[in-house]
Amino acid sequence: MALRLGTIVQDLGGELLGDPNLDIEGLAPLETAQAKQLSFLSNPKFQHQLASTAASCVIVSPAMAEEAQKHVACIIVDQPYLYFARLTQLWRKVHAPLPGPYIHPSAVIDPSAQVHASARIGALCVVERNARIGADTELKSGVTVGERCAVGARCVLHSGVVIGADGFGFAKDGDRWEKIEQLGAVQIGDDVEIGANTCIDRGTLSDTVIEDGVKLDNLIQIGHNVRVGRNTAMAGCVGVAGSAIIGANCTIGGSAGVLGHLVLADNVHISSFSLVTRSIHKPGHYTGIYPLEDNSSWEKNAATLKQLAGLRERLRALENELKERKK
Amino acid sequence: MALRLGTIVQDLGGELLGDPNLDIEGLAPLETAQAKQLSFLSNPKFQHQLASTAASCVIVSPAMAEEAQKHVACIIVDQPYLYFARLTQLWRKVHAPLPGPYIHPSAVIDPSAQVHASARIGALCVVERNARIGADTELKSGVTVGERCAVGARCVLHSGVVIGADGFGFAKDGDRWEKIEQLGAVQIGDDVEIGANTCIDRGTLSDTVIEDGVKLDNLIQIGHNVRVGRNTAMAGCVGVAGSAIIGANCTIGGSAGVLGHLVLADNVHISSFSLVTRSIHKPGHYTGIYPLEDNSSWEKNAATLKQLAGLRERLRALENELKERKK
Amino acid sequence: MALRLGTIVQDLGGELLGDPNLDIEGLAPLETAQAKQLSFLSNPKFQHQLASTAASCVIVSPAMAEEAQKHVACIIVDQPYLYFARLTQLWRKVHAPLPGPYIHPSAVIDPSAQVHASARIGALCVVERNARIGADTELKSGVTVGERCAVGARCVLHSGVVIGADGFGFAKDGDRWEKIEQLGAVQIGDDVEIGANTCIDRGTLSDTVIEDGVKLDNLIQIGHNVRVGRNTAMAGCVGVAGSAIIGANCTIGGSAGVLGHLVLADNVHISSFSLVTRSIHKPGHYTGIYPLEDNSSWEKNAATLKQLAGLRERLRALENELKERKK
Repeated sequence: MALRLGTIVQDLGGELLGDPNLDIEGLAPLETAQAKQLSFLSNPKFQHQLASTAASCVIVSPAMAEEAQKHVACIIVDQPYLYFARLTQLWRKVHAPLPGPYIHPSAVIDPSAQVHASARIGALCVVERNARIGADTELKSGVTVGERCAVGARCVLHSGVVIGADGFGFAKDGDRWEKIEQLGAVQIGDDVEIGANTCIDRGTLSDTVIEDGVKLDNLIQIGHNVRVGRNTAMAGCVGVAGSAIIGANCTIGGSAGVLGHLVLADNVHISSFSLVTRSIHKPGHYTGIYPLEDNSSWEKNAATLKQLAGLRERLRALENELKERKK
Repeated sequence: MALRLGTIVQDLGGELLGDPNLDIEGLAPLETAQAKQLSFLSNPKFQHQLASTAASCVIVSPAMAEEAQKHVACIIVDQPYLYFARLTQLWRKVHAPLPGPYIHPSAVIDPSAQVHASARIGALCVVERNARIGADTELKSGVTVGERCAVGARCVLHSGVVIGADGFGFAKDGDRWEKIEQLGAVQIGDDVEIGANTCIDRGTLSDTVIEDGVKLDNLIQIGHNVRVGRNTAMAGCVGVAGSAIIGANCTIGGSAGVLGHLVLADNVHISSFSLVTRSIHKPGHYTGIYPLEDNSSWEKNAATLKQLAGLRERLRALENELKERKK
Repeated sequence: MALRLGTIVQDLGGELLGDPNLDIEGLAPLETAQAKQLSFLSNPKFQHQLASTAASCVIVSPAMAEEAQKHVACIIVDQPYLYFARLTQLWRKVHAPLPGPYIHPSAVIDPSAQVHASARIGALCVVERNARIGADTELKSGVTVGERCAVGARCVLHSGVVIGADGFGFAKDGDRWEKIEQLGAVQIGDDVEIGANTCIDRGTLSDTVIEDGVKLDNLIQIGHNVRVGRNTAMAGCVGVAGSAIIGANCTIGGSAGVLGHLVLADNVHISSFSLVTRSIHKPGHYTGIYPLEDNSSWEKNAATLKQLAGLRERLRALENELKERKK
């Protein structure tokens, strides 16, 4: 379980200032790294940790190189964090390489489904009628891909993911609900990763679409007819209601939500716990979080919040009164 | 994959103004419909789309009929959206009819469980000891119905649903938690639909109850001892804490919550992302959402919110001061 | 399905005032209990129910004993609720004893995994390479324990739990995301209970850690590198972002959240629906919930909330003006 520094830079590039024969036995954060471990410095505000780290080598940007090499061997690269990401991939490839293509014997694959010969289908997966799984895509255990749904190439779907359950569509008939059959499917692009127990519903008439490069964390709900644009990323527990159209390169924080039928432009960033209640046409960072307080302060402020419109009126009345008096 | 207009009105009723021999090849929203597609107009505010739609036929209410028939064939019915729902069912029945009753060989059904002969049990389902599955009910793949839990007739449970996990009950014993065994079960009525990965916990002493006609979306958590009244619908990611009693014909928006032991009357409607913190005895529409803003505005307003009770005091002081001066 | 009062106090202790030969046929809340049922009174505010209960026996504290025995047989113990918890365990042991150790034949257990001989592994579970399952631990059906993850002794993992999916880690490479392989695992202590469909992600470089005695409800998301301290309990739908460190004996209410990299001290209690946005170093009760209102009031107050910082400025201006005039 070791990797020579020389092997690393040979594989991933970067300028090594240090002994290429040094064996690296692990990767670790700068603060907790031990001898024979390799770390990285991405955020300059942690620069002071260079002096005290026990790491044997640190990945740094050119700007940090001079300071770093006073204390420790280093690999100099333009984007240390990105380099670190690739290093984790190299590490895994060397120490725990993925198996070749396989379909676990416990998986239930409909004969009409098209599973690419290079795909890996884990234990207890279900791939239904006319579903398609692309090249080099991996379904971990217990993933469901519903009928006619398509997953692109190089995707990873984690355990418990459900692709293509019925969208939530009903018409009122008096008090009871009449089901609207969900006749569409789900189309997932290439290089998409979907976290454990996340659900993406099939469209009503056309398809729910997840574009290339989208990254979804665990326990996310994507409603029917939604479109999520390229490279958009969502953290855990997000809910996107039906027919929302989300642009490319967006980020949506954990437990945030998007109401139905809204449109979000590209490069929109939504904070955790914030609900998007109207379309957003301008890139930017949007937030709607009730601030945390100790409970007794919260009780007072929240009670007052319910009178806020009234307070505004009273303030206006005072302003008018003072204006009057000036006359 | 086509259906004649004449067949449709013969099956579902409605007055057809147009050629009964016309073949419909798909259903689509009014705005995106193509030739040979059938659409519907439910909300009068989209009436202007009638003039430009490429649809071959539109389902409309009597009030829209005159305008509609200037542009396109139409089916006139009192409730276009409800008719559309039934049309999706017809469409599915004709083009992708459900299979007959079956139990997938990979499902794990306890010998003591009672599965109705007309039920459909998907791949990798688990139906435990003494559980009951009603007539014409469908369990998609990977559904768990725990011991002694009962599911009524004509229900649909989507993939990953867990019925009858233990409710979350513990008593404190110093710092540690002593488990309260959950001795009840779950009773689900008829015509209930439950979305993917939704969980309904078993009751502590008596049963958690989901009444007839309830519709639950994906990733919902229903705690132990809860009762959900007839025809109530909940959108994705809702959490209902233990022992809450929710009335009939309620709607609960996505990611909303209901605290434990509360009572909600019939016909209560809770907005998305809102937390119900007290019982609601009056039908109506209730909301508690922090409004979304651009992040810098939010920072200012949220910081001020923490001083809100103080602002009210200062306002009151000013009001008093002005009153004093008047004397 | 009955248990003599004498047997109960023999097993669990407590002073019985009543006939030890009385057969108890069920446990029930005080308010709804019937004859031959045993109930408990924990909260003194429900003391008035003693007079009207139909229960045959009530578990009470010494302070309630005098009042209780006027109406009904009773078992006197210091902590009635804790005694009730143990009684549910006795009830279950007698009426529905757990089976001995087993591995369901449909479970997929990697040959390298170490499953303790006393563990119970339910239907359709997946236990991956080098995973470990401790003594007397029970995996209900459909649980996944990923490679190298370890679950301690006497744990209960409910259906659909996913331990060890990849943490959500990516580095930006222009617009696209480069995956950071998650090289750590998950370590779960002893006496941990994890609710249905809850997910605990594996760490990036080191392990995600759930300490002894932690209780997690359903549909919770625990991000990579998180540590949850001893005996901390979380209600359903909570999300804990990556690298958060949560202390011991904390409680986190339903649908609450903790942002990444934060530290929470021991004995911190977070209300439902509240987002922790900064580290909390002081034990206490913290809340951040937008209060629920009828929708029309909410509309007015929420609109005003967006002007709150401005209102504060106007208030300050008025205060200054009045001060000026006084001079």
